[in-house]
Amino acid sequence: MKKSSTANLYVALMHYPVVNKNGAVIASAVTNLDLHDIARAAKTYGVQSFYVVTPIEDQRKLVEDIVDHWTRGNGAAYNPNRRDAMELIRIRNSLEQVADDVRTQCGLNPRTVVTCARRKPECLGYGELREMIQTENPYILVFGTAWGLCEEVFAQADYVLEPVAGSTAYNHLSVRSAVAIILDRLMGPTSLTNSGRA
Amino acid sequence: MKKSSTANLYVALMHYPVVNKNGAVIASAVTNLDLHDIARAAKTYGVQSFYVVTPIEDQRKLVEDIVDHWTRGNGAAYNPNRRDAMELIRIRNSLEQVADDVRTQCGLNPRTVVTCARRKPECLGYGELREMIQTENPYILVFGTAWGLCEEVFAQADYVLEPVAGSTAYNHLSVRSAVAIILDRLMGPTSLTNSGRA
Repeated sequence: MKKSSTANLYVALMHYPVVNKNGAVIASAVTNLDLHDIARAAKTYGVQSFYVVTPIEDQRKLVEDIVDHWTRGNGAAYNPNRRDAMELIRIRNSLEQVADDVRTQCGLNPRTVVTCARRKPECLGYGELREMIQTENPYILVFGTAWGLCEEVFAQADYVLEPVAGSTAYNHLSVRSAVAIILDRLMGPTSLTNSGRA
Repeated sequence: MKKSSTANLYVALMHYPVVNKNGAVIASAVTNLDLHDIARAAKTYGVQSFYVVTPIEDQRKLVEDIVDHWTRGNGAAYNPNRRDAMELIRIRNSLEQVADDVRTQCGLNPRTVVTCARRKPECLGYGELREMIQTENPYILVFGTAWGLCEEVFAQADYVLEPVAGSTAYNHLSVRSAVAIILDRLMGPTSLTNSGRA
């Protein structure tokens, strides 16, 4: 079994196609702290690349400028740890482009695993996915912004991951928190029952 | 055993005394998304209150204004789910004030559990703390901002929680991500080995 730290796992943060509060399909604006928080979590859990997905040229330029500041500009010297995380960021137009990029990188066809705060039929459990990513097969974990991914993304996905579900009925985590928790469930310690932790 | 959803758990986010990049003690500025993300995670995992701690009057006023907007202002009508989370926020000057408030609320003396990205001697494990919070005793989980809590906070704490530690040596999560992961480890599903999850 491969070590968790080298799982062939990728994260994609989608800004299109997502829905707004009223269910209309929109392209959402990029949030600066999404880039930082998700890059840092991805680096912590050994994710291969963090794809920021938007078809809007101005938004791609904004992400490029932010990443450039932290990886080659003044930010890189100011905070090398941040640089190491921000270097994981790749900018793409669509999920298809992300899949193409992963295919080119590993020579294997990636599977998409879409996340959602609401339970969908035939969800994949964390335990199952945890085992699946211990192989060399590449998986792309797909996260939505705004009010969530639009239905066509679910329809085209290979798998839908079960919702995080805390210890209450409230299910309105930020995408930053959801990414952190899901990576910990997939790549963090297996068991919480002993203090040393597996 | 009490249900996890009713654990007597409190979260405190400290803006003083914390250290800057050079190890000097400072009061850090409040970050708007810390309030939102941590309130939403706290609500998801049944945390009793989320204390934002700063002795700076202007900063307390800023937090009050933000909380007011989302709990009583236009934000409350725009997004009632956000209101439910932001209602958990309490603003206090110091950790002593937080402890006093918890003591008044439950009539029991709270224990403080301080978090840190670096491993300290005699750390408390997640499994141990998970069992401890299943009692009626109140616990305050203490998080730092900026470059972390200053040493006196550790010296005065009842317990220090072991670091999150992902699947790599990189340990530079945002405080927003760290809170989310720690609450999931303490109050989320126990086991990740079966797909249904405990």
